[in-house]
Amino acid sequence: MRVSLLAYTQLNQDADELPEPLGQDCGPPLERLVEFAGRVCYRSTSKLGNGSAFVQARVREGHQSIIEHASFTFLVEGISRSCSHQLVRHRIASYSQESQRYCEPGADDGLVTPPAVEADPEAQAIWQQAVDGLAQAYGELRERGVRKEDARFLLPNATSTRIVVTMNARALRHFLNMRLPGAAQWEIRGVGLEMLRLVYPLAPSLFSDLYETYVAGRV
Amino acid sequence: MRVSLLAYTQLNQDADELPEPLGQDCGPPLERLVEFAGRVCYRSTSKLGNGSAFVQARVREGHQSIIEHASFTFLVEGISRSCSHQLVRHRIASYSQESQRYCEPGADDGLVTPPAVEADPEAQAIWQQAVDGLAQAYGELRERGVRKEDARFLLPNATSTRIVVTMNARALRHFLNMRLPGAAQWEIRGVGLEMLRLVYPLAPSLFSDLYETYVAGRV
Amino acid sequence: MRVSLLAYTQLNQDADELPEPLGQDCGPPLERLVEFAGRVCYRSTSKLGNGSAFVQARVREGHQSIIEHASFTFLVEGISRSCSHQLVRHRIASYSQESQRYCEPGADDGLVTPPAVEADPEAQAIWQQAVDGLAQAYGELRERGVRKEDARFLLPNATSTRIVVTMNARALRHFLNMRLPGAAQWEIRGVGLEMLRLVYPLAPSLFSDLYETYVAGRV
Amino acid sequence: MRVSLLAYTQLNQDADELPEPLGQDCGPPLERLVEFAGRVCYRSTSKLGNGSAFVQARVREGHQSIIEHASFTFLVEGISRSCSHQLVRHRIASYSQESQRYCEPGADDGLVTPPAVEADPEAQAIWQQAVDGLAQAYGELRERGVRKEDARFLLPNATSTRIVVTMNARALRHFLNMRLPGAAQWEIRGVGLEMLRLVYPLAPSLFSDLYETYVAGRV
Repeated sequence: MRVSLLAYTQLNQDADELPEPLGQDCGPPLERLVEFAGRVCYRSTSKLGNGSAFVQARVREGHQSIIEHASFTFLVEGISRSCSHQLVRHRIASYSQESQRYCEPGADDGLVTPPAVEADPEAQAIWQQAVDGLAQAYGELRERGVRKEDARFLLPNATSTRIVVTMNARALRHFLNMRLPGAAQWEIRGVGLEMLRLVYPLAPSLFSDLYETYVAGRV
Repeated sequence: MRVSLLAYTQLNQDADELPEPLGQDCGPPLERLVEFAGRVCYRSTSKLGNGSAFVQARVREGHQSIIEHASFTFLVEGISRSCSHQLVRHRIASYSQESQRYCEPGADDGLVTPPAVEADPEAQAIWQQAVDGLAQAYGELRERGVRKEDARFLLPNATSTRIVVTMNARALRHFLNMRLPGAAQWEIRGVGLEMLRLVYPLAPSLFSDLYETYVAGRV
Repeated sequence: MRVSLLAYTQLNQDADELPEPLGQDCGPPLERLVEFAGRVCYRSTSKLGNGSAFVQARVREGHQSIIEHASFTFLVEGISRSCSHQLVRHRIASYSQESQRYCEPGADDGLVTPPAVEADPEAQAIWQQAVDGLAQAYGELRERGVRKEDARFLLPNATSTRIVVTMNARALRHFLNMRLPGAAQWEIRGVGLEMLRLVYPLAPSLFSDLYETYVAGRV
Repeated sequence: MRVSLLAYTQLNQDADELPEPLGQDCGPPLERLVEFAGRVCYRSTSKLGNGSAFVQARVREGHQSIIEHASFTFLVEGISRSCSHQLVRHRIASYSQESQRYCEPGADDGLVTPPAVEADPEAQAIWQQAVDGLAQAYGELRERGVRKEDARFLLPNATSTRIVVTMNARALRHFLNMRLPGAAQWEIRGVGLEMLRLVYPLAPSLFSDLYETYVAGRV
């Protein structure tokens, strides 16, 4: 599994456009943006600080809509189709996923093997034989002229996929709150942890509670 | 595949509550509801007709929000996980899907076999051998103590699933417009066609264009 | 202010379509529907009970998506445009609102007067004079040929409006949780309380916590 | 009215994170991002071009989800509450609006006067007298201890407001398609035109059809 941060909300660099306090050089720009949005509600943009105290207070009191102005675009690679099926159930987000209708599984894709299988040599042997059989059958069906969109019915959940995911900070916090606790599956937890590690430095006050609980506290 | 209509928006039978024209006994109640909502916008509820002409005119001119007041809840059974993965990508909808983390595939589930495979005895033989191998491997992994949530990595896309789907009429129309044309995959087209057949009689004017194109015209 | 329940999710009366346990005659149908959807996830529909215990347990543990299958359509009349502006900020919902671009305020509309103004005769006199002045100016502008869409710039927030609102049970619960506490404004609290009184009998287990806190406890 | 672009989706400047083709120095970064997301679907990211041809083709064929990865945050100032009430009806967006519950209208706010009123001296006189009366009444109510949240019932639709708006490119295109045609109201058309002028240079291929029709063609 590999999670990269491709893009995220950044201030307009054309400084002439920015209201003065937003263009200040203090604190993470994303936090300033969120604080600015929050202060518009109370007509107090002139008191714009460095973002963090204000933002944490609003998040804590449940004024969550202001953090929606920040969004993050990730590339998630090497997760199973089981995991992507869970992921796309989060509806307040945007997804672009590799299609099995249009793409054959390549030699470089491989499969995602659960750690519990990897840890047990006999389980691994059972697994390997099964997936080899599938790969062979997939190839044979394709050779007989079965289309990709039909041959893929044989591909297992373990098949690796690649997906671009955009979530705003509120939706991302919801996702992390659902998927980081121990009861979540190991694979989607892994995706969530990588996302959290990537976004935390950009706007610590939006994610500090989650970071404390799930990353820092675990060291 | 089997699609049933479990529930849908119906008028409050406690007639005292209903504004007079809405309680009239003319035309499909769902169309009257949509017309009523549309007429609230123009303060013309006293002119409430039998729904269909008004509703068709609004849908044609793009005033689509009024048809969101009607929603439909389907049970979709016996579709592949490939199909459900496509389905849940439609985000303006509500889903409750059988979990592979918590449920073992039962003997009664079977798999969804693509017609193109069923039509070719040799392809079918390849298919059968592959899925038998998988089922055996799944069982063996479970016997070795691998958890359902990990053993399911071996389950193929063909594995049958069951899902409850609620969409409002606007989201449903969008789904049908995307998934009924010939370029869509046969399985999700089938789901769409069944949905259309079920909802059309309840509110013909909301779906008549689609029904003409994809159902009536094909007889 | 008047809130009516126009329509809501009801079981398909064509009993042949319904999976057997859902057609049972026990417990509120809406709760059975929600329980059925929840049990699809765990493949336990055969254990379908009378809805309430199961539903309350799921709501309490945060498995909220299953209650989205139930939705409610209200007609809200006689609220101010201030209130409707707050209301439509709740985005997971469908709205059809009387247009001030197309409709002139009628004689029958009146205005919404805040209780704090009604309670103070001098405040009321100030209020009355101001709104009379506005109504006259609105009429004079219209007579000079100013279009409704421009003359309405003079209409005050107090102007009464009418709106059809559809929310699913999850969105409705969120709305009620935000708008029923004492810190919310009196007018939107009133809307929320009426909605709660209307939906509670239809599916008590979906709303019992809110009903206990905000309705029953106040008697 | 003043519309500023506060922030928008920009590539992660930490180049090590970016998949190679995305880090290329060719074409507007936003278009490259959208093309990259689109090419993930077809496993053709290695063919990443300069964005525009690919993006325009996808938008034209209706593969709109890929443009959701780009989002834009605007500050809109000096619009009427009529206009903001229309604006926030667009639900796939995020808003932070100045609250009339918490903020008194300041001396610097002024009102939004419709051009049709400004163009007619007698209409303007009627208008001025009415709004002066309102401002005085608002002040008198406040002096009698009526709270801001109640006194604001007297504020007219013309009252100026300020709102931070975030929309992704798909939602923004929908907004512009609804609100730029001549049938839309002049004020919200003005907001849409300003937004279009601000975003067009950042990702021309996402907005070129709209720009041709509503901006370039009008010069």
